[in-house]
Amino acid sequence: MNPKFEELMQHVEKMQALGAAMTLFGWDAETGAPADSMEMTSRIVGSLSSQYFEAMVNEEVRTLLMELKSAEDLDEIQAAIVRDMVKNLEDMEKIPPEEYREFSELQAKSTTVWTKAKQNNDFASFVPTLEQIIAYTKKFAGYSRKDGQSLYDSMLNDYEETFVQDVLDPFFAGLKEKIVPLLKQVVAKNDQIDKSPLQQSFDVDKQRELNHWLAEYVGFDFNRGILAESEHPFTTGLHNHDVRITSHYYEDAMESAIFSTIHEAGHAIYEMNVADDLTLTPVGGGASCGMHESQSRFMENMIGRSYEFWDPIYAKVQEMFPEQLGQVSLEHFHKMINKVEPGLIRTESDELTYCLHVLIRYEIEKEMIDGELAVEDLPSIWNEKYEAYLGVKPESDTMGVLQDIHWSQGSIGYFPSYALGNAFAAQIYHTMEQELDIQGALRNGQLPIITNWLKEKIHRHGMIKKSRQLLKEITGEDFNPQYYIDYLTDKFTEIYGL
Amino acid sequence: MNPKFEELMQHVEKMQALGAAMTLFGWDAETGAPADSMEMTSRIVGSLSSQYFEAMVNEEVRTLLMELKSAEDLDEIQAAIVRDMVKNLEDMEKIPPEEYREFSELQAKSTTVWTKAKQNNDFASFVPTLEQIIAYTKKFAGYSRKDGQSLYDSMLNDYEETFVQDVLDPFFAGLKEKIVPLLKQVVAKNDQIDKSPLQQSFDVDKQRELNHWLAEYVGFDFNRGILAESEHPFTTGLHNHDVRITSHYYEDAMESAIFSTIHEAGHAIYEMNVADDLTLTPVGGGASCGMHESQSRFMENMIGRSYEFWDPIYAKVQEMFPEQLGQVSLEHFHKMINKVEPGLIRTESDELTYCLHVLIRYEIEKEMIDGELAVEDLPSIWNEKYEAYLGVKPESDTMGVLQDIHWSQGSIGYFPSYALGNAFAAQIYHTMEQELDIQGALRNGQLPIITNWLKEKIHRHGMIKKSRQLLKEITGEDFNPQYYIDYLTDKFTEIYGL
Repeated sequence: MNPKFEELMQHVEKMQALGAAMTLFGWDAETGAPADSMEMTSRIVGSLSSQYFEAMVNEEVRTLLMELKSAEDLDEIQAAIVRDMVKNLEDMEKIPPEEYREFSELQAKSTTVWTKAKQNNDFASFVPTLEQIIAYTKKFAGYSRKDGQSLYDSMLNDYEETFVQDVLDPFFAGLKEKIVPLLKQVVAKNDQIDKSPLQQSFDVDKQRELNHWLAEYVGFDFNRGILAESEHPFTTGLHNHDVRITSHYYEDAMESAIFSTIHEAGHAIYEMNVADDLTLTPVGGGASCGMHESQSRFMENMIGRSYEFWDPIYAKVQEMFPEQLGQVSLEHFHKMINKVEPGLIRTESDELTYCLHVLIRYEIEKEMIDGELAVEDLPSIWNEKYEAYLGVKPESDTMGVLQDIHWSQGSIGYFPSYALGNAFAAQIYHTMEQELDIQGALRNGQLPIITNWLKEKIHRHGMIKKSRQLLKEITGEDFNPQYYIDYLTDKFTEIYGL
Repeated sequence: MNPKFEELMQHVEKMQALGAAMTLFGWDAETGAPADSMEMTSRIVGSLSSQYFEAMVNEEVRTLLMELKSAEDLDEIQAAIVRDMVKNLEDMEKIPPEEYREFSELQAKSTTVWTKAKQNNDFASFVPTLEQIIAYTKKFAGYSRKDGQSLYDSMLNDYEETFVQDVLDPFFAGLKEKIVPLLKQVVAKNDQIDKSPLQQSFDVDKQRELNHWLAEYVGFDFNRGILAESEHPFTTGLHNHDVRITSHYYEDAMESAIFSTIHEAGHAIYEMNVADDLTLTPVGGGASCGMHESQSRFMENMIGRSYEFWDPIYAKVQEMFPEQLGQVSLEHFHKMINKVEPGLIRTESDELTYCLHVLIRYEIEKEMIDGELAVEDLPSIWNEKYEAYLGVKPESDTMGVLQDIHWSQGSIGYFPSYALGNAFAAQIYHTMEQELDIQGALRNGQLPIITNWLKEKIHRHGMIKKSRQLLKEITGEDFNPQYYIDYLTDKFTEIYGL
């Protein structure tokens, strides 16, 4: 091994350990930490974060990276690690360490403030914190943007390389043009799907049991992962042998728990399948937010909301909930879980309206970052757009602008990757269909046929390849949103008999 | 503030954050981490541990400490921090960083190996790991011992300063001389206490509920702490606003869960009551292992096994378990929870035989460290001593030499502090009795009267004072084991009507 690279890996090991510690504190804050612990714990996390920064941005690492940048004896993984670190170093070196540290402390506190604001439907109490968060993210984007690049493009590029406004504007325009008319046709025929059986009360302990079973069924390995509970379902992980997901259980929202679990399991299976020689390195995660989201949405929607997926297992669900579902046919169940209902909550929205939720956030972020939109005006513009695009108006900010955790963590420019993930998933599904009998595998309960294909083509590569390149290699063409539009059109035309 | 001290605190902050991260990984390993995660996670913990070592043992810190050692403008807390750090630095500087790191990784793995060995009653599979652990602890004790000091005395002194073999030998001899005859008298009258009501089946969910309630009743603050579940109950904490305890629930062992919970709550209340300006500093913990144990045993036995403690709350327990306890009087319940039964398991032993369990471990450790006892011979000597002192013989190593986690973590010399803790508790109880109406407070459910006294006299001081000094200041005399012997004699003479 190149001795300089070996030396670099000693620094990497430190960074990875500090990063994993921050991840564990994050997990703990969402799933277990005592209510009054956060103020002191944020001092700990702030220090870890600043040590992470110091381990990454220092003269030794810089010198090693500059030498390794042009080294010719690195293998593919080593080269990817160096490339990734050079980019991060260059981005991070632009941020003064003190600001980085202040921001990390702010992030830790902000989540608590947002949680309380959401609980109390009190957006005003969140305004000062969110203003600070946005000020920092703008400042940081200003440090890293290229000449002439807008601040928002700089943020977007951080989450999904090359997918900036000149790609996203036509992507969202296309969706708006095709989906809005389709939605109207669908909603007009909505009376034909009676969803009341799913709106009954489902015992929470039984839901827990079912969700654990479903997670395992789709391929989540409980020897290498945990399923816990939190306000907002999420996936996190320390390495490919420790991947953690959450769901949430309410008596009157079984469907929400099921698809949250399958969604997060899709993320988790990606992380679990990353190759052993990549995990615990800087390229040990998923290729990008969008590619990650493609795997969760693939599992949730293309697999989890298909008729064939439920075919072999629906009897089990009926057995667990005989009162509620004993008399409901699989055909009826399949229609219920695909019913299109323009609603307020992104994470619980159906497949068809989902992209409109993302569109709204995209438009708001554009205005907030590159335009003049003030934080205090967010609730009103949020509510207006919901009324305009989805025909629904939030009655509270809890159900509106406060619903997502992202902005509280400074994740601005992240939302578009949710829509891109769906489009990636549709494009990947199109290719997989030509190579595998997907429906047959599902009918026989052979989920590994599907997950192994994904592992081979996508998961095991970690971040060795960028999402756009990976997509091209898997599907043989550049990003093409038409597959997504076709997929939605075909699926809902069939379900609604249009 | 002394500017050098201010500079020192920047290093302290890093160390504290790394220490807290290791604590959280430790908590996670016992309460949540997936089964197959440990191998990779131990690499993370190993790196954090080595970063902790580097943050503590380096030229900058050394220079600052040497200057601050003789500074005259430090307040009491600052002086204690410097004193504590100088001692740790001097101890740690003697350990080569590579060995420290190897040992930390070994510790992380060892717990898993021990857990499996215990599950499978397979001591042989634990031998190579334990041999390695012992080799490291002996090597480290060799680095830090003073001239002429034995290795075991060096280990003992690490856990409980000045309480080495010349104090412990007469202490244990005194217990042996007085307790063994008392035990014989008691066991001869054991038929008069029928314990069958407590040996029934108790619903685990109800036990959980009762234990949460009891923890809160004795003063555990759930806004600043968590009660979870693990194989072996323990207490850990990130700071005084995040203190975590575990218990364990089995249908047929409600008594064990109750007193584990009260015991760990005693530890936790100590940590929660440490002053805000001490927590997250090197002197933010309890004064010593023994002083910590005095607080848990005080709560478990002197409080938790007293008649007066249960007087106001026993009706609640009866209500929760009407079938099992509805017809059992408080007098009977009180005798049951104090019944003396020589058994195999230290953590579930009664108050009277407890010190004999510790005595056995003390004698074995002496032989293992300063003598010639080989690891492979541990089971046979363990079993012989149990037969000789307690009249019971383990049928399996799971119930014998594998029962405690301590050796697997390299905690050798720790056990004696358990017996010392009891003796400290008795000495402290004697003083408290003269200042407070303890029985009255318990009968009125006024636990805070007791915990506030402990907070004022002991808890809030953290590690500012060494245990021996603290004991002297609270009780007005040096360590005096006679209080413990008198306490046990009086209590069991009364309960058994001797």
